[in-house]
Parts: sequence; structure tokens; C-alpha cells
Amino acid sequence: MERILVKASKHSYPIFIGENIRFRLNKLIEKKYSSILIVSDEKVAELYVNDIVTNFPDEKVFQSIIPVGEQSKRLEYYYQLQTDAIQFGLDRESLIIALGGGVVGDLAGFAAATYMRGIDYIQMPTTILAHDSSVGGKVAINHELGKNLIGSFYPPAAVVYDTQSLETLSEKDIRSGYAELVKEALIADEVFFNKLLNVNLINVKNNQLEEHLSAGIKIKSSVVEIDEQESGVRKNLNLGHTLGHALEAELGYGEITHGEAVAIGLLFSLHVSESTFSSKLPYDSTFQWLKKNNYPLNILQLNEDSIIKKMKTDKKTLNNTIQMVLLKEIGKPIVQEINDYDMKIYLKSFTKKLEIASLVE
Amino acid sequence: MERILVKASKHSYPIFIGENIRFRLNKLIEKKYSSILIVSDEKVAELYVNDIVTNFPDEKVFQSIIPVGEQSKRLEYYYQLQTDAIQFGLDRESLIIALGGGVVGDLAGFAAATYMRGIDYIQMPTTILAHDSSVGGKVAINHELGKNLIGSFYPPAAVVYDTQSLETLSEKDIRSGYAELVKEALIADEVFFNKLLNVNLINVKNNQLEEHLSAGIKIKSSVVEIDEQESGVRKNLNLGHTLGHALEAELGYGEITHGEAVAIGLLFSLHVSESTFSSKLPYDSTFQWLKKNNYPLNILQLNEDSIIKKMKTDKKTLNNTIQMVLLKEIGKPIVQEINDYDMKIYLKSFTKKLEIASLVE
Repeated sequence: MERILVKASKHSYPIFIGENIRFRLNKLIEKKYSSILIVSDEKVAELYVNDIVTNFPDEKVFQSIIPVGEQSKRLEYYYQLQTDAIQFGLDRESLIIALGGGVVGDLAGFAAATYMRGIDYIQMPTTILAHDSSVGGKVAINHELGKNLIGSFYPPAAVVYDTQSLETLSEKDIRSGYAELVKEALIADEVFFNKLLNVNLINVKNNQLEEHLSAGIKIKSSVVEIDEQESGVRKNLNLGHTLGHALEAELGYGEITHGEAVAIGLLFSLHVSESTFSSKLPYDSTFQWLKKNNYPLNILQLNEDSIIKKMKTDKKTLNNTIQMVLLKEIGKPIVQEINDYDMKIYLKSFTKKLEIASLVE
Repeated sequence: MERILVKASKHSYPIFIGENIRFRLNKLIEKKYSSILIVSDEKVAELYVNDIVTNFPDEKVFQSIIPVGEQSKRLEYYYQLQTDAIQFGLDRESLIIALGGGVVGDLAGFAAATYMRGIDYIQMPTTILAHDSSVGGKVAINHELGKNLIGSFYPPAAVVYDTQSLETLSEKDIRSGYAELVKEALIADEVFFNKLLNVNLINVKNNQLEEHLSAGIKIKSSVVEIDEQESGVRKNLNLGHTLGHALEAELGYGEITHGEAVAIGLLFSLHVSESTFSSKLPYDSTFQWLKKNNYPLNILQLNEDSIIKKMKTDKKTLNNTIQMVLLKEIGKPIVQEINDYDMKIYLKSFTKKLEIASLVE
């Protein structure tokens, strides 16, 4: 088991990564809580919720189970969790455990952040993708007009990452998760990036996965330690997300996974970076790797104006101008303002490039 | 104009108290914001919103006006403010101004705390009561099962208190506000308390009011500076609120003002404190003052079991046991656990005492 300590403004918290550590949860948690509410989705609950409950034979343990999918990350379920918490009698010394992917983590985390003005919560990610959202204290729900627009910075009490729970992931989920790992590698570590481009996602080994997760989490946590509230370097973690978030909104949340959208966004960032800095970046090798690993890259019918409008609802937008993370080189990210005119040209040349590539096939 | 600086964990913020300072708002705010959203209620907006707007001739200024009353401090209006903020194009460099009483301050403050994970907001209280809620960074909305159950600790960027806006207050509003001033005096300052007991609320002068507000705010801010997150001494500010909150819930929010409910709660605290510590506290003089100033004290038909149940949904409740603030003497508050059996006896003897007093009349 690996243990990484993250220094947050309010308190430091540990991230535990290891196989089957969900059975040792009670040993990893130091504090005694008055009661515990496990929040999970229907699929994850069926697989693991009992394993969590058995950790606490002498405590009051309750469950709130939400439907699977991004659609649950909205106001109705947020309020439902608050109602559950009140009716189960949770007080300020209670704990919420977020057992699941990013949707569960963000929703349950935001509920914990705002229940009685904030109680402890523990992230137990069960997807690769959630390695990203579970670290750094960002919690949120979606507004019908945009993703993650309602939320807080509220660090967890701990992150407990049982890699065994990743064995049941689908190919799609593995792809989605690796997109964020590629992002972390691109902003911070060329060696890690090159290692990832050699991975074949269909037969990634458990020890490899653990190594990659640990490397990604270390990059993420070192960034959020410096800039928890996203006033500076944390913005770099948005690499690939300007187009990524807009694509998710344009296609409808759930139509494309977050990671798949980010993957296309990363490729777009490389495309814009190459044009802006006239530098040679790994656009081609990234494209080939994404293709080989069956990432969906067919977004040819984009309406650029609609995409640009959606990009602007992003929280990084300032004065109605899109802020996009670019790369001067691998490990050298920079935030650039891009005006609508240039953005439209970039989007057109990008889809053209993808179209040509698909014809060559 | 008086200026009090409050040291909060995230940042320090100034409280300005003075007559007609709403016309100098732009001079009091140091930061330049990309846009401004004024949140107010229908009544206050009609009186003062234009005065605020004229401070910012060169900025983008928007308004969200909510209905008057506690009923607005709920999820629907919270979501409406989020929608407005998105549609007006507020970004992370925008400001929310909460212009109104405690309802507006709590609702707009919670919206600011969670819009794009938190933007700046300024409290502009227009009631005496709101001197309490506008200082200390507590923001919240009500859940249908309990008051202020959803919220955050999120300090404002500033508090701008224009005492001129208090001149239009009704007798009821003045009563309500003075209850929290009496509370602050009881937990911290006997001289201030005795001064308040000499005030006749019907003809309180503006300079007196300014002095009382300033004294109350200094007590409040010195407490929240020591204990922002309410893990210790901040709990003392809950004096009178255990029964106060339960009464509001029992009678229906809006049926009795918050301050009027707190006034009865303060009297109850004195009653329980006298029994618990066998000490002589100013129960009688407080009762006389409340009566003279027309506070409603006729709560004879209380259902004790229902009140106790409501007391337990309070955020201070731990392990299903009521935590109540008592006074060993004036300026010496202490948090005590009170079991249901004792609480029922205290409630019965309290209503009996009030009943006898009303017969003597």
C-alpha cells in the first residue's frame, strides 16, 4: 500500500492506494465518528457497499444509493442526500463516505461540504478517472446550464483507493481514466508521458495501473498543494478541458465519457499549441495512441459557434474571453486567452485534420 | 464612520458602520470586479437598490430580486440565483452584493460561496437583526426539515452597514434586532447589558443605535475570530437559540420573527441557568424589559415533546443529545448537555412561570 500526504489549507489528508484496502478502512481512519453515511451508486453499491459496512460493526452506518451516471450529479439528488442525512440523524461529528466514481465523489463531497456547514468525508474512488476528481478538494454538482458550476473547495478527510475495485472496469472506463493520466503527464512529466504512450489499455497489468495512478496522483496533489483555490498553477490541470467540457455539454452529458471528451480536448490543445508556439509537440503520437486504444475521435460535425458559446460558460472564462491551457513543451503549460475568431479557426483546422486522418485510414 | 477589522481564516475583512455610507460604496470597495450582481428583496430593493447601482456607473451591474421573508431562504431561490449569475455572465472575478436583512444575506452569501466554487460577496445589512448574521461568514439556506441546515462558512469580502437604512424599520424589526444585541451583551459584557435594559425601543436614537450595533458587532467578531468554524467558543453565540429555533419551526417560519423567538429563548436560558447553577441571574429584569418593549411572550400552549424533537435537529446536537448554552453569570457562558427528561421539566416550569406572570398583570 502506498500513502501520499496532501497538504491542504484547512488540514492535511492522506491518500492510500493499494489492493483490497477497503477491508482495512476502519484501521486507516483515525477519528471516531458519531455515525456514517455511505453514498454510492446502484452499480458500485451492489459490488462493494457491504465490504465497507463490515468495517464498522459497532457504528451507526446508513446508505444513500443514487442512480448510475452524470444525470445524478444535480440539484435533486443533492437535496435528497441532505434530506437523508437529516433523517438518519447525522450531526457535525458524522462522516460521509463517497464510494464510487467522480459523480458520486463530487455529489457526496458537495453534500458533506454544505451539510450543517461542512462535515468530514472520505473519497473512495472506484474508477481510474476518479483519481483526478477525488484529490484536490473540488466538489460540485452540475447546473442545467453548465457542468460543475455549483460547488466548493472542500478537502476530504482522506482518500482510500482500492485498486482491486478497478478490475471490474469496462474498456470505456479504462480509456476515460487514462485520458486524465495522459493530461497529468503532459503538464508535468515527459518520461511518464512516453511510458503511457507505450501502454496498451486492453491488457494493462494491475501493477502497471498502480504505478500510473500513483504517478498521476502525485502530479495532481503537488499542483493543488501550491494552489488549492485555482488562482494560479492549478488552472494548468484544465489542459484538454476547454474543448472537453464543451463537447460533453454539446453532445449531452453521458453521451461521451468525461475522459473521452478530455482526450479529444488534449489533442486539440496540442493542435492549438503547435500553431501558437510554432513548436513540435506530440500531436501525431498522441493521435495514434488514442486511435489504437479506440478513443472516439469522430467529432466532424461540430457547430463551432455553439461550441465556443459552451466554452465560455467554463469557470475559467474571464470577461467573456476563453482561457485555454496550452503547452510550450511537455511539462511547460501556460494559460492563454483566445478570442472567438481565432478559436473558430482552430476548431475548423482541427476537425479538418481529424477528417483527413480518417480518410487516410 | 466606524471601521472594524475581522480576521477570518481565509482573509481579513472590514466592517464599515456609518450613516449614508451606501453612497460611498465604490470608495469603500478596493477591488475592481468584472461584474456585480445585487441581490435584494422586493421591499429593500424599492428603497435602496438604485442608490447602490449609482456607485458603479462604468460597471456591468445586475439585479436579482427575491420575495420578502424567510420563505425565500430555500433551495428554489438559491438555484434561481445561480441561474441568474450564469445568465448574467458572472465569472470568478465578479461580486455579489447582499442588500437586505438576514434572509438576503444568508441566501446570497451561500450562492456566492458555491457559485463556481466561490466568488466574493459583500454584506449590506438593512436591519438591526442582520448585524449578527452579516458578521462571521455563516451562510445558509433552510431545509424543509430544519433551519440553516444547508450552508457553509464563507467570510464576506466586506460588511457595509448604512445605519440610515435602519430608520425605516418597523417596531417589530427593531425588537427582533435588539434581541441579538441583548444576547451578545449577556455572553460578554454586563455593562453593555445594563445599558440595553435602560433602552426604550420605541424612541431609540440613531446615535444610541450606532453605539449598540458597534458594541454588539465587536463582541460577535471577537468571538468568530477565535473560533470561525464553531468548534468551541462560537457555540456561545447560540445562547437563546436552542428554544428560539425550535419555536420558529414549531410556529412556522415567519409567524414569529427570529429575534422575537430568540428573546423568549434568552429568557428560557436564564431560567434554566438559574436552576442549574442555583445562581441569581437577571431573569426578572430581562422579563420586565421584554414585556415593556412588547416582545410576544405568550407561548403557553407549547407541546414540549414536539419542541424537544425540533431542538434536536439543531446543528449543535451531538449524539442525539441537546447542547444548550447556559450562563454561570453574565459574561460566563457554558455549553451544557441537557437530557430530554430534564428539558421537559424546564419547559414546563418555564411556561408555568410565564403563565403566572401573565395572571399577575
